[in-house]
Amino acid sequence: MERYYYGYDEFRDDLEKLTQIIDWEFDTIIPIARGGLSMGQLLGEYYDIREVYSINTIGYDDTNKLESVKVFNIPDLKDAENILILDDIVDSGDTIEVVLAKFKELYPHKTFKVASIFYKPSASLQPDYGVKEAKEWIDFFWSVDLKKDK
Amino acid sequence: MERYYYGYDEFRDDLEKLTQIIDWEFDTIIPIARGGLSMGQLLGEYYDIREVYSINTIGYDDTNKLESVKVFNIPDLKDAENILILDDIVDSGDTIEVVLAKFKELYPHKTFKVASIFYKPSASLQPDYGVKEAKEWIDFFWSVDLKKDK
Repeated sequence: MERYYYGYDEFRDDLEKLTQIIDWEFDTIIPIARGGLSMGQLLGEYYDIREVYSINTIGYDDTNKLESVKVFNIPDLKDAENILILDDIVDSGDTIEVVLAKFKELYPHKTFKVASIFYKPSASLQPDYGVKEAKEWIDFFWSVDLKKDK
Repeated sequence: MERYYYGYDEFRDDLEKLTQIIDWEFDTIIPIARGGLSMGQLLGEYYDIREVYSINTIGYDDTNKLESVKVFNIPDLKDAENILILDDIVDSGDTIEVVLAKFKELYPHKTFKVASIFYKPSASLQPDYGVKEAKEWIDFFWSVDLKKDK
């Protein structure tokens, strides 16, 4: 599979596009760690939302998909109402499906939407707000930039 | 006060310096949201640590310092032992002092250290690992890059 380097400038431009397509008011941002953390920081600043709470999942072991996705470090959302969940990429859709299912079980009366930069048409679930299709293996800057000089 | 634009390339270089001065093995990373979130993502990837759990504080109202710092969304650290807390800047030191006090109260037998990019010699507490002194008001890229075109 070809590898595509995804740098900071493209990320910034894509987040700008994301802010242009998000037509919904939300009060809380949940970045899925680690993929959504930088998104959570920039979008939290942009929307002036301090309620940015990470959640963690394990579902991949390097590039080998595990059968199940484990969700942990689940934030308390009792004061939240409309929650935007962030991830860098909706790949198979499993991660976001499991995260959404967990939140809907815990908070059946709150509203959750999903924003991601990349999505794949083959995913089991599409983000409510997505910027572009993933057609290659993506080397995100946050994964490779510090390792380059190792 | 002069304003200094802090861009992604400088951030990347500073994180590299941080990895060169951190001489301690840790198993868990706690980025203070929102300031430490991107740091948490890049360092989590670099150290191959998935246990990246954000914590939140409110202590500033724009540029006006509040008298107290409120800590919330405190992660469960029962499985952690050596915890690296991240923030973009240790300014007065109040935020990191309150976060450390809360963690030491909850987990008196675990070890906590602090890493930040910027520090001020006047702060009440210095990071264990810091890259550079803050001499001006810093416009971090995560705070201003998306707002530029607004």
